[in-house]
Parts: sequence; structure tokens; C-alpha cells
Amino acid sequence: MTASAAELSAMARARELGASVLGTTSPNPAVGAVVLAADGTPVGEGATAPPGGPHAEVRALEQAGARARGGTAVVTLEPCAHTGRTGPCADALLAAGVARVVVAVPEPTQLAGGGAARLRAAGVEVELGVAQQAAEEGALGAWLTGVREGRPFVVWKVAGTLDGRVAAADGSSRWVTGPDARAAVHRLRASCDAVVIGSGTALADDPQLTVRNADGRDAARQPLRVVLDRRGRLPRTARVLDGAASTLVSTAASPRELLGELFARDVRRVLLEGGPTLAAAFLRDGLVDEAVVHLAPKLLGAGAPLVGDLGITGIGNALTLTVTGLTQLGGDVEIRLRPNRHTGDRRVADHHGATGGS
Amino acid sequence: MTASAAELSAMARARELGASVLGTTSPNPAVGAVVLAADGTPVGEGATAPPGGPHAEVRALEQAGARARGGTAVVTLEPCAHTGRTGPCADALLAAGVARVVVAVPEPTQLAGGGAARLRAAGVEVELGVAQQAAEEGALGAWLTGVREGRPFVVWKVAGTLDGRVAAADGSSRWVTGPDARAAVHRLRASCDAVVIGSGTALADDPQLTVRNADGRDAARQPLRVVLDRRGRLPRTARVLDGAASTLVSTAASPRELLGELFARDVRRVLLEGGPTLAAAFLRDGLVDEAVVHLAPKLLGAGAPLVGDLGITGIGNALTLTVTGLTQLGGDVEIRLRPNRHTGDRRVADHHGATGGS
Repeated sequence: MTASAAELSAMARARELGASVLGTTSPNPAVGAVVLAADGTPVGEGATAPPGGPHAEVRALEQAGARARGGTAVVTLEPCAHTGRTGPCADALLAAGVARVVVAVPEPTQLAGGGAARLRAAGVEVELGVAQQAAEEGALGAWLTGVREGRPFVVWKVAGTLDGRVAAADGSSRWVTGPDARAAVHRLRASCDAVVIGSGTALADDPQLTVRNADGRDAARQPLRVVLDRRGRLPRTARVLDGAASTLVSTAASPRELLGELFARDVRRVLLEGGPTLAAAFLRDGLVDEAVVHLAPKLLGAGAPLVGDLGITGIGNALTLTVTGLTQLGGDVEIRLRPNRHTGDRRVADHHGATGGS
Repeated sequence: MTASAAELSAMARARELGASVLGTTSPNPAVGAVVLAADGTPVGEGATAPPGGPHAEVRALEQAGARARGGTAVVTLEPCAHTGRTGPCADALLAAGVARVVVAVPEPTQLAGGGAARLRAAGVEVELGVAQQAAEEGALGAWLTGVREGRPFVVWKVAGTLDGRVAAADGSSRWVTGPDARAAVHRLRASCDAVVIGSGTALADDPQLTVRNADGRDAARQPLRVVLDRRGRLPRTARVLDGAASTLVSTAASPRELLGELFARDVRRVLLEGGPTLAAAFLRDGLVDEAVVHLAPKLLGAGAPLVGDLGITGIGNALTLTVTGLTQLGGDVEIRLRPNRHTGDRRVADHHGATGGS
């Protein structure tokens, strides 16, 4: 038996619920769950609380109450069977008396695995792998990258002109894009655990790097602000050191080393907001997982480029990506993409080999 | 009385009909017409034939036959009242017995004007200015630019990477974009009277510049191929001189002089396909009316830019445009735009003044 239409709808809603808490759950995954009553009616929904709080299934079951009995739990990640800071979700599902559990992504870790087995042993029907790819490419992507590669997921955000300039010839860049695109950047920051720039951007633009709400005030939860500053160039007066949020000034020798430092601090999703040089360093090392490009309908004809030297000389060696989203943000254009080559992929090695290494 | 819903639908169809013959009617306007019977049913449609052939209204009336009597003619441009190579359309409408004529754009020339007056004098109800802006920004734009500015309308088409490179560092550029985008370029060429490049592009890429149909064969009608070659650099072996279509090799001293030469040859719509230097020359002189930008989801980090030096130093002086269309073409992105500053606009003068003149 596969998933019903009601269950697929519930799974789409569960993915939304997971995405809504992205940036608040690390090092835990951003999971979403919906409970359907025996007749298929949604009666409860939930998403992962911040670390130490209840998991998505538990929240959805609380809302469903007695109506969960004989019903179905639809959840983006296989329920855990272990006791960490919270009790096993599999036990909570059994106590609530659900008859069926529909899961997008099977639990990939040994530690938490076994929820499906425990549920099945107790007579509950379990369906794994329902709309799995959508869940993996959605809110679970950051956490899965951590599990599989031992590093945070990296979103590269860049704003430039139609002709690929992030600043004019005189260095001026405020504001390339309009208010709608800038508001989208704040929402993007809020979905991440850390925001990274290089000392060059800190010196040139002196950004505060905080998340501001629609009303212009700082949000209650702030991602870690990170400045890669190998040469100690960051002045004490930099706005990124203003105390409005935590800040890490790192002297890591490479993007990979920096990501290692951040992973150790439970960071699972990073927004890379640096300039062309830092972006190029991450791209050369295959350490960009998603790109969010904001293009203003402007032409400059000169100025700093979107990305610095990648060591690519011929069009056949271009770094290729796939467009996953295309939308207008006010007068600007947002293009979302995923690189076609990933860390560990042979093609990355070939690519770097052909261009003199990373 | 304003236009009815049936008339507005017919006008939308008339705009489509006009656009379908773009590139085949110059120096005449690409007009579309729909005839509605007395009960509002569409009974005939037509578009301008190549020069010497019937106008749109006449074709639509032919198709409608007797059903036009007491009906309504919906047409994108005011019917002419003069006898040129064809008889006056106003007389044809009177002979067919239509009771009402709905027009988008009033005739702007003295020569052909007077159609509405002649119709009204004969007792026909005439509505002018219905969805006028849509018609002016559509297929009539090229002809109107000719009437108002005495020069052809210029569409700048450029294909580059996400980071604004039209070629890699070694000069290679085939193929930046994929087959769907390249097919769109052929359709764009077919909608124009001439395709312009500079000698630099002829030497670097040696394009044939013909219109090829979906089956890969040359289309029956070909736009004039134009190479701006002030220094006589074009080799006799260039593919643009292969005889597959007419070719003009011009030594015009400026974009405006080149457009003057083309206007004198009845060219009303030009596709600018040159490289960054030629594009910059047209943009600096305010001679781009529409931009079609194809972006491949690739990063190069180096190579020739989308557009050359515009003399702009600060972000506040950027050449600004408005996005009019955003779509995916296969794996690539198409952005259509209109510059916010036009020739004769005071702001262009200010802009050029601030950057050292054009």
C-alpha cells in the first residue's frame, strides 16, 4: 500500500511545518508532522521545538488528543526510538494509539534509528520514503548534510546587477536591490544558524548582519555572526561586533576548516554573504549547496563581479547549476539554484584538476 | 460607452495577430484585427500582409463576409483613410456595413490619419484608446518608434552566465545557453527586420545570423544581416557574407548613424546581437528599447562581461530597467526588460552629463 491523497497533502503540510522552524532547531533536524484521524481528517500538527523541547510528532499528538487513536501520523523524518533530551517519539505514537505512520525520510543515523522497527513490532503499519526527495531537498537538507558530510549546509546569497556586478566601479553598492529583496534576505538569515562574511566585506560595507523583522527591529532569535578574518583586519568598531547578537571572528585557514569550527558549535545551516573572493573560495572547494541570487534590473558596465576567480578558463569547464526557483521580488529577480557538482563528486576533482586545483 | 468584455477579448486576440506578423510588415505597422458579428461572436480575423498586400481590417472583413454587417471591427491601430499601395481601410469598413469600430492606438501620422473621422461622419460609432498601452508596448512599438523618433526600435539580446560573462577567459562561448534559449533567439530574429553585430563578434564567433526554423533549415524570410565594420576588418570568408540572406556591411560612425541607414532601408525593428562593446555603445546613447537577457545557470568567475564600459562609476548612476517578463527556457532563464530612460528623456541627458557624455 502506498500513501493516499490525504496523506500526500498532509506530507506537503508537514514539509511546510518543518521549513517554518528552520534555523531554530539545530543540531536537531527541522521536522514537521501532521496527525490524521481515522477518517483522514487532519486533527493535529507540529514542528520540532528548539533543542530540549518536544519533537514534531509529540506536538502534533498533543494537539490531536484522543482523535489520534486509530489514525495516521504523517512525518517528514522517521520517528526516533532513543531517549535523548526527550523520550522516544515511537513510544509516544504507540501510546496515542495511531494505526499507521507515514514517513518521508528514513532515519539515517544509528543513534536514533529503529523507530519504524519498534512501531512495526507493535503492530503499527509504517510506510517509508513517501515524497522522500522533496523532504530531503527541503527543511531536512541542512541536517542531512551534517549527518552525511559532517559539515553544515551552505546557502550562498548574492545580490548583483543584471550584468553581474555586486558594486559599482567606485565600490558603492547600497542599495543594489530593493526593499522586497532585502526583506527576503532577512527571512533567509532567520532560517540559518550562522551568517558568514569575510573581513573584506566587513571593511567595505560594515554590515550589522542581524535579522530584522518587517517592523525594522531586531528579531528575538539571531543567527551567529561569523567573520573570517585571517589577517586580523576587523576593527573593534565594526558593527558586527556591536553586541546585538553573538559573533565569531575566525582565523580558519580554509572554508572547510571554518565549516568544521561552525559544525562543532552545532551550526547546521550557514548563510554565506561574503564578497566575490570568499564566494569563490567556497565554490572552488565545492562547499556551496544552494545559491540564492538576487538580480537588480540595472546595468553598471564596471565594478566588482558576482564571484571572483574560479580558476576556470574555458566555457566547457564552467561550474554548472540547476535552477530550482525563479520569482520576482518587487522590481528585482530571485533565482534559486543548486550546484550540479557536490563535494566528494568525482567531477569536482576533475574540474579542479583541469584548472590547477582548489 | 466603453469597450465590452467581448471587445476586450477580441482586442487581446488582435494584439496577438499583430505580433504574429512582426518582422514581415515593415515599413508598415504590424496591425491585428478581429470582426465581431452583431451578436458579439468573432467571425473574422486578420493581420497586416507584407508591403503591398491587404491591411489587417481588410483581411478580417474578407473572412467575416456578410456576417460583418451591423457588427464591430476591433483593431489595434486606427484604420487609415488614405490611398497608398492599398485603398483606405475606412472605406472597406463602411462598405462591409460595420456599426462600430474599436481601436487601441489612434493613428499618429498626418498622412494616414482621419479614419475615425470618416467613419463617424458616416454614422459608425468609433471608440479610440481601448487597451492602448498594451498595444503600444506590443507589436506596434517598433512602428511607433519610427513615427515618433525617426529611427528603428532596438531589441538588445544577450546570452551570458549567472555571473554576467558572455565568454570564458579563453574567449570560448559556444554554447553558453541551451537549445531552448537558442531556438528562442531564432524566433526573436524572425520578428525583426535586421540583425546587427560588430566586426568583433564576426571575427570571434563567425555567426551566420540567419533565422533557422525548428527543423534546422533556413526560414523563407530572412532579416537583413548587418555588420558594423568601421575599420574594414570583416574577412571575405565570414559566414555572414555567405549569400544565405542579404547583408549590409556598414561603416557608420555611431549607433545613431547606423540606425539612420537602416531606417532609410525601411527597417523598423532591429535585433542587436553584438558583443559587450557594441551593446555599451547603444546603451550609452539611449538607443536600446527592449532587452532580452538569457542567463545560463553557470558560473565562470572570469571572461568578457555582458556589457562593456558605460562610463558609470557609482551605483546611484546605474542604468535602470524594468522587468517585463521572467521565464525559464529549458534550463536557462529569460529576463525581458525595458530601460527606464529613453532617448529625448531629460534623465538620459543628466545621466550622460554625470558620466562624461555619450
